[in-house]
Amino acid sequence: MARINENYLKLQAGYLFPEIGRRVRAFTESNPDANVIKMGIGDVTQPIPPAIIKAMHDAVDEMASAETFRGYGPEQGYAFLREAIASNDYQQAGVQIDADEIFVSDGSKCDCGNILDIFGDDNRIAVLDPVYPVYVDTNVMAGHTGPADDNGRYENLVYMPVTAENNFEPELPSEPVDIIYLCYPNNPTGVVATHETLTKWVEYATQNKAIILYDAAYVAFISDPDVPRSIYEIPGARKVAIEMRSFSKNAGFTGVRCAFTVIPKELMGYGKDGQEHAIHPLWNRRHCTKFNGVSYPIQRGAEAAYSEEGKAQIESLISYYMHNAKLLREGLTSMGFEVFGGENAPYVWLKTPSDMNSWEFFDHLLDKCHVVGTPGSGFGAAGEGYFRLSAFNSPENTEEALKRIQDSVSAGIK
Amino acid sequence: MARINENYLKLQAGYLFPEIGRRVRAFTESNPDANVIKMGIGDVTQPIPPAIIKAMHDAVDEMASAETFRGYGPEQGYAFLREAIASNDYQQAGVQIDADEIFVSDGSKCDCGNILDIFGDDNRIAVLDPVYPVYVDTNVMAGHTGPADDNGRYENLVYMPVTAENNFEPELPSEPVDIIYLCYPNNPTGVVATHETLTKWVEYATQNKAIILYDAAYVAFISDPDVPRSIYEIPGARKVAIEMRSFSKNAGFTGVRCAFTVIPKELMGYGKDGQEHAIHPLWNRRHCTKFNGVSYPIQRGAEAAYSEEGKAQIESLISYYMHNAKLLREGLTSMGFEVFGGENAPYVWLKTPSDMNSWEFFDHLLDKCHVVGTPGSGFGAAGEGYFRLSAFNSPENTEEALKRIQDSVSAGIK
Repeated sequence: MARINENYLKLQAGYLFPEIGRRVRAFTESNPDANVIKMGIGDVTQPIPPAIIKAMHDAVDEMASAETFRGYGPEQGYAFLREAIASNDYQQAGVQIDADEIFVSDGSKCDCGNILDIFGDDNRIAVLDPVYPVYVDTNVMAGHTGPADDNGRYENLVYMPVTAENNFEPELPSEPVDIIYLCYPNNPTGVVATHETLTKWVEYATQNKAIILYDAAYVAFISDPDVPRSIYEIPGARKVAIEMRSFSKNAGFTGVRCAFTVIPKELMGYGKDGQEHAIHPLWNRRHCTKFNGVSYPIQRGAEAAYSEEGKAQIESLISYYMHNAKLLREGLTSMGFEVFGGENAPYVWLKTPSDMNSWEFFDHLLDKCHVVGTPGSGFGAAGEGYFRLSAFNSPENTEEALKRIQDSVSAGIK
Repeated sequence: MARINENYLKLQAGYLFPEIGRRVRAFTESNPDANVIKMGIGDVTQPIPPAIIKAMHDAVDEMASAETFRGYGPEQGYAFLREAIASNDYQQAGVQIDADEIFVSDGSKCDCGNILDIFGDDNRIAVLDPVYPVYVDTNVMAGHTGPADDNGRYENLVYMPVTAENNFEPELPSEPVDIIYLCYPNNPTGVVATHETLTKWVEYATQNKAIILYDAAYVAFISDPDVPRSIYEIPGARKVAIEMRSFSKNAGFTGVRCAFTVIPKELMGYGKDGQEHAIHPLWNRRHCTKFNGVSYPIQRGAEAAYSEEGKAQIESLISYYMHNAKLLREGLTSMGFEVFGGENAPYVWLKTPSDMNSWEFFDHLLDKCHVVGTPGSGFGAAGEGYFRLSAFNSPENTEEALKRIQDSVSAGIK
């Protein structure tokens, strides 16, 4: 009798974004003429930069001719891309990461789920709260948790609340944990970590022989020179941290799929007997056995993100989105909202007004302003009473959304 | 202390193809002038057909403009592709599969590894022997086996030998099994399954509430009208079978990555309490949580594989490779080799001559003929004494390889 993985039955009904999609569809069906502005899901809106498009076309042409056709590539990614990443994202910033420590993949979402394959089921897992739901759901699926309570918190997961009260700075867990998810610039709160914060975590991981899964998908949005770009800027991090980055949000790759994970050679996990095992060969084996590499034209596109042209074009994309973030921050602040993030991240995190809960404010914004955001409670219990707005839109839409919110505030929210 | 998944430590050193790669590199380093003909790994050699290339270019252009840019797509694949697959591969052949039962992915290798996520760890797994190593290794990684014995067979896996002695027709397992991997046209043996064989398996799975994982990656190479293309041609299969197909081998997508898995709505798994659970929502949840869809331009390319032009171009690719298969079959047979497969599959499976074992014959072919094949023992204990040659090459190379093998036979092998 074929048994299912019963851990899936613990998962709560709606992965956040499908639930948002459902409510938006219901609204637009009843209000077909409404001009709904979507600032919910963190999807980019601007086209892929020309230098990257050209590289993709050239690579597609290579596939059209027997002389230049490429079949299976290296599962870990082509050397041209791994070297471009190591050089541009790390070595040129003074961070020691070698090309063969880069594993190219088809997405950070995939990586942060798949990485659990190589870890044992007896690890104690810590996540921030609010948190990107995929970290939690993939641990539920892997059987690392008990059932969820009424707040949606799963038994055995260690939640570290980050709210305005603690200035979004998580406390170290009071019980020892083995795997810690950190995401900076943070999704959903838009806040960043200082050197001090990351140093605290690297020291904790070193002392506890824990591993940090560091999601840096939004690194390109950091403008403050004092904010660390990579966890490997912290001494000792090569021994305790895995870093994940993506081309989705900087180069507009959400629809074409390319990302990477860094596994330093010194990174160690442990057997039940306490013996050290290098993580790099484990992930390499996983990658080679369950993955077949990223599409060649897409890897050539990602390589072009590091050309002089590509870099300049990406920089202007980032400015475009960060201008929207600034509009949101300033506009909402002037209306009296309490606003966080949005300075080194494309997300603005706000306290919901008038003691509304997150979904009430979602419905209010949708019904009254025809603006879609993301309810903070969808990211975890500590996100209740907060709300995320995304800068992935046009300045025109952002201004129009702000105008509508202003009107709704003036009319008295609720 | 971060614990590793210790099941990885049970894996045997070389995944087959890296070991072949190592030996070929060593040979070419010592013999830099040798013209080595590679008939080992099952990678295509011909470029992607023009109709598909055009569709990919068009889609890349869509990504270059804000009006037509697409960000995150549906994780399950775009409707245009799911509908093209359901219609062309199933409905037009009289097989009932709906578009929403198709899950588009980046490769059958990925799918056949990832599918284990949704099944419990207490299933008894059956595989053919010889077998595509990924089925075995992913089960080892998932902890479904004990350690390997001296023949490389893992404890708790049920191996079903297929050799010339049983005409490559596996016997039903003598102990009940829960999940059965079948691959037809078979990799590595190149043999196909009749309706009777598949009916036997569907009946077995129905009686035992087991699930068949049916890998049909090579279906395009079937020319015999009596050979079933899909397991869903067998009555009752929708309740017990998952089918996986790929664009890799027919449309030349090994380097661009697109495949799909079919999960019929009636397919059931079971809880520990014996209760039925539909598999479709479990896989849908897995796909949405740990995967973000296939690259848009690649999905448009896959769609074009079903255009009239695309179909005709693929048909001529298949003929090209199957001509090589015929050359191999006939050439090797005339030299006195015992040869199997190669009629409805791009692989020829032969008995090694002179009682050589598979790796001895590998080394002989490499050293004496400068031809790379795949040792049968790399696919399992029952593959010992066999050898796989691939038709994914040019007729010129195939003929040259045959000539060299003929010379080596004439000179007396060994």
